[in-house]
Amino acid sequence: MEYRADRYDVAVVGAGHAGVEAALAAARLGAKTILFTITLDGIANMPCNPSIGGTAKGHLVCELDALGGEMGKAADATFLQSRMLNRGKGPAVHSLRVQSDRERYHVYMKRAVESQPGLDIKQAEIVEVRAKEGRIREVVTALGAVYEVGACILATGTYLKGKIFVGDVAYESGPDGTHAANRLSESLRALGLELRRFKTGTPARVHEDSIDYTQLEEQGGDEPITPFSFETTGELINQKVCHIAYTNERTHQVIRDNIHRSPLYGGKIEGIGPRYCPSIEDKVMRFADKPRHQLFIEPMGGETKEMYLQGMSSSLPEDVQIAMYRTIRGLENVKIMRNAYAIEYDCCNPLDLLPSLEFIRVRGLYGAGQFNGTSGYEEAAAQGLIAGINAARSIRGREPVILDRASSYIGTLIDDLCTKGCMDPYRMMTSRSEYRLLLRQDNADARLTPLGHEIGLISDERYERFLQKERQIAEEIRRLEKTSVPPSDSLNALLVSHETAPLKTGGKLADLIRRPQIGYGDLAPFDPERPELPRAVRERVEVEIKYEGYIKKQQAQVEQMRRLERKPLPQDIDYRTIAGLRLEAQEKLNRVRPLNLGQASRISGVNPADISVLLIWLGQQNRKGGAQDD
Amino acid sequence: MEYRADRYDVAVVGAGHAGVEAALAAARLGAKTILFTITLDGIANMPCNPSIGGTAKGHLVCELDALGGEMGKAADATFLQSRMLNRGKGPAVHSLRVQSDRERYHVYMKRAVESQPGLDIKQAEIVEVRAKEGRIREVVTALGAVYEVGACILATGTYLKGKIFVGDVAYESGPDGTHAANRLSESLRALGLELRRFKTGTPARVHEDSIDYTQLEEQGGDEPITPFSFETTGELINQKVCHIAYTNERTHQVIRDNIHRSPLYGGKIEGIGPRYCPSIEDKVMRFADKPRHQLFIEPMGGETKEMYLQGMSSSLPEDVQIAMYRTIRGLENVKIMRNAYAIEYDCCNPLDLLPSLEFIRVRGLYGAGQFNGTSGYEEAAAQGLIAGINAARSIRGREPVILDRASSYIGTLIDDLCTKGCMDPYRMMTSRSEYRLLLRQDNADARLTPLGHEIGLISDERYERFLQKERQIAEEIRRLEKTSVPPSDSLNALLVSHETAPLKTGGKLADLIRRPQIGYGDLAPFDPERPELPRAVRERVEVEIKYEGYIKKQQAQVEQMRRLERKPLPQDIDYRTIAGLRLEAQEKLNRVRPLNLGQASRISGVNPADISVLLIWLGQQNRKGGAQDD
Repeated sequence: MEYRADRYDVAVVGAGHAGVEAALAAARLGAKTILFTITLDGIANMPCNPSIGGTAKGHLVCELDALGGEMGKAADATFLQSRMLNRGKGPAVHSLRVQSDRERYHVYMKRAVESQPGLDIKQAEIVEVRAKEGRIREVVTALGAVYEVGACILATGTYLKGKIFVGDVAYESGPDGTHAANRLSESLRALGLELRRFKTGTPARVHEDSIDYTQLEEQGGDEPITPFSFETTGELINQKVCHIAYTNERTHQVIRDNIHRSPLYGGKIEGIGPRYCPSIEDKVMRFADKPRHQLFIEPMGGETKEMYLQGMSSSLPEDVQIAMYRTIRGLENVKIMRNAYAIEYDCCNPLDLLPSLEFIRVRGLYGAGQFNGTSGYEEAAAQGLIAGINAARSIRGREPVILDRASSYIGTLIDDLCTKGCMDPYRMMTSRSEYRLLLRQDNADARLTPLGHEIGLISDERYERFLQKERQIAEEIRRLEKTSVPPSDSLNALLVSHETAPLKTGGKLADLIRRPQIGYGDLAPFDPERPELPRAVRERVEVEIKYEGYIKKQQAQVEQMRRLERKPLPQDIDYRTIAGLRLEAQEKLNRVRPLNLGQASRISGVNPADISVLLIWLGQQNRKGGAQDD
Repeated sequence: MEYRADRYDVAVVGAGHAGVEAALAAARLGAKTILFTITLDGIANMPCNPSIGGTAKGHLVCELDALGGEMGKAADATFLQSRMLNRGKGPAVHSLRVQSDRERYHVYMKRAVESQPGLDIKQAEIVEVRAKEGRIREVVTALGAVYEVGACILATGTYLKGKIFVGDVAYESGPDGTHAANRLSESLRALGLELRRFKTGTPARVHEDSIDYTQLEEQGGDEPITPFSFETTGELINQKVCHIAYTNERTHQVIRDNIHRSPLYGGKIEGIGPRYCPSIEDKVMRFADKPRHQLFIEPMGGETKEMYLQGMSSSLPEDVQIAMYRTIRGLENVKIMRNAYAIEYDCCNPLDLLPSLEFIRVRGLYGAGQFNGTSGYEEAAAQGLIAGINAARSIRGREPVILDRASSYIGTLIDDLCTKGCMDPYRMMTSRSEYRLLLRQDNADARLTPLGHEIGLISDERYERFLQKERQIAEEIRRLEKTSVPPSDSLNALLVSHETAPLKTGGKLADLIRRPQIGYGDLAPFDPERPELPRAVRERVEVEIKYEGYIKKQQAQVEQMRRLERKPLPQDIDYRTIAGLRLEAQEKLNRVRPLNLGQASRISGVNPADISVLLIWLGQQNRKGGAQDD
């Protein structure tokens, strides 16, 4: 029997990494918000890798933090080991990655959502969302509570008709022994949403004491540690080490011998898995000539003996898993605590979404995270934040916040999803951005904190600190540009020892920093006027000076791109009525409903000729309907 | 497809409070043990009250600790508030109760089982247990792993065909959003076990910030704090307060108006609920003239805002729950985070068990906890420990450990279960023991630690510390018995101020302590020879002296009881062949299979005349088969 429950501005369905960011953002922006989860014990659970960040993912977390999200702070508060990946490469692809304490991370985030004013937390399964006249109106729980809502964010992760596969065994389930959400899909289809089956997988968790560490390479963390959050202060200390192991020919033989027992190869799994996060059987079968694959043995927490085998995801039967893991040096006697599995779930087609993450067909309904076809906690959190912001703004009749590709990886991620869609779980990579040199972790605050402040997620105090930092950076760059050093024996000795030419006459400090071999820190002994500056400031100063030329070049490209982005396309238009557009372009444009010419130009199936047609058509419209600015 | 997994001495099915104690005990006694759980995240979960101890339950925990169990240590390490209940009554019923941090308790116990040598932990659902020739042989997981086992302990809690009820909604589930275990029951029935449906319930969890504390009575903890464990040292500090609230006529009206919507009153729940832990609707309907019922508002943890409403368990529909809770002063605006529910589950009939907790019909198969028809974490843990001990001993062909009623509440609990059975979830109460004055918390170590040491669960070091404490107690009692104090003005002033007669001539210190008004501590100023003794020693000294007469009387009763306990009954006997036994007695004796005449005498339906018949028959047998000692 149904009953009428409270009214909320925003309902968030699911309290994983997307859901918690969505709920926090909406509530912080003043929306009366409710967060639904099948179990309160699963809030911000890490059902897969107990880790935050990684290549390009670290960028997402820094951006999220710069906009006022929570993930970076939670990761800083609960990490076990921190490393900056890709240090050997340019600063653009330096990516922070931490091993997290899964239990502490959950406790931190549960506390965060519980403590958020304006946010109610409710253990309940949402079984129906109801719309009227193309607008979301109500959500209904399994117990029959009907909540009137202004907006609803779907962040269902792998719960939606979740089904776990291990060899020939399959059963309905969410992650980690929880229920699946079996009833909501039908109601979403009834609203006209296209649902698809994606799958993901996870490796086994094994017992620490069953590993022979003497046979493994140790991998320590970095010191000093760079935090994710621009707000984290205080000393951060690595608590744990990780280890590296390798598969071998025997491992691969076990897999090949049993590949017919894989539910994926046997055709039992219809869902499509993440291309860039393949199972070990995928890796072995696809790259048959590779003699070994690396795996990382990572702690699940500071107070547990569960260890995660990164790189060894599998849906092979349990006996094959055991045999396979035990071929690995150091794991000869390994004991599995939780077996590896694949999980299949319903998700939407993100082409049904606007770049605000609102559904084109159901206004007030938003999607975020795995439900939108992505993979990864960071991708989920990033979308959650944007969906939360836009749901809250929609309640007040405000325009959505849309990040463009040049602003952020978050913008790139969402533009990719809504414009190109995805055929398998989408994972962020630095190669997905054409503005890599601009989209660094170190300047995420410069790129996004002003917007975060304008939106209302960054406090005045934090914004003031940010402005102060930017002033310090600018002043220091100015000082380095105008300060000359005379040639001296000791300076030239330094230069020569770094394999770069000695100075004959005096030179500007900035010019020396522009040399690839010389860092800002190296010049300290020759720079008596140098002020005491925080590490984050010193790093930014160095990057900005060193890469000034490249950065300026990319900024020019951005300007070009933004010219097209500034030509909005009307949202009520039927592209079939525009003469000159090819049929495929008409169909794709009608499906994606791009917000502007820039987005239209990135739709696959829309070519430059189609864009010219649209440009001409737009000009005609503007002449008819009054001027639009260029 | 099945595959053959490893061989274990002991398999434990379920990692709740019974399962963890069973697994730890078995492994500590040298049995190669495996602990199965549907989710590792549910190890030692508290799905109901986040509390350990309470009247009679505190005794169970102290006894468990005295035998080498873990619960007391876990509770001491993770408590938020500690209180000694019944301080106004005699020392026999002083019962320790702590509010626990549910999350920390889980983390502590997960770590404890993970760290136990000889114990493997495996996330898996057991779907079948297999016996051959009346002896357990194998357990099978949902993934088809077949484990050969020497013994198996069923500690399935509320998971076995778990079904949750809220108003007219019912669904299959374990507690807190986990799967139920739906397949094992069938296999147990096939082994000849009788399964029954019991139910239990839990109140809502509400948000701390939605409570108006100014309207509530505060309930602080005790200082200084008595620990559960005889091994806990160091200072213990209360972290949180609890609060007291009351239902009122409006609450009761809401319940009465909606009682037809209760699944229990509507006949939907077939399971039998705990008589001594009724739902609020039961209390209101059964005690219609009571104007109010007390409830306690208790924190679920130190890092969460979830609050538990002790005393307000319910299976009424969610809308009724909200209306009902909001009638309570202080809860007018309360927000529910998890709703109250009833849960129904399969459990065995403990009359099928021997006092070793082994099944009569399936040797090597043991039951513990809610599966045996009990209620409560402490009752579960106590049984788990005994089942674990006896499973491990059976592997080595050793006699089971059976605690008699005079030794402990644990013995009383198990004797009640196996001898009298239970018609509703059994809860321990001090009134269930006829030897209350002997079975105190303070002397649990004196009663059981020698046995724990003999079994092998108490280390030599701990045993030595225990002996030292006993020596201190005995010496101090001896000293007090022989030390006289002269009458003095100051002593007499003390006595008079405590409303007891002044001394005219000198008196023994012990005699003064025997006066109800005078405590051991009061006499310190008049006892210059008094040694520095630990608090636990001082308390025992006082109790032993004060209640010496009563204690001696009960010890005489124990001797009498034990005389019958020492007359063993053969286990292969068919009572229908004993002439003179009434038919009912024959049936009951065949069902219960008492180990001795003492147990037989407590079977309901076996009367003193039947015992006489058995006594005579036993005498005949002994004359035939050789002497048995009296």
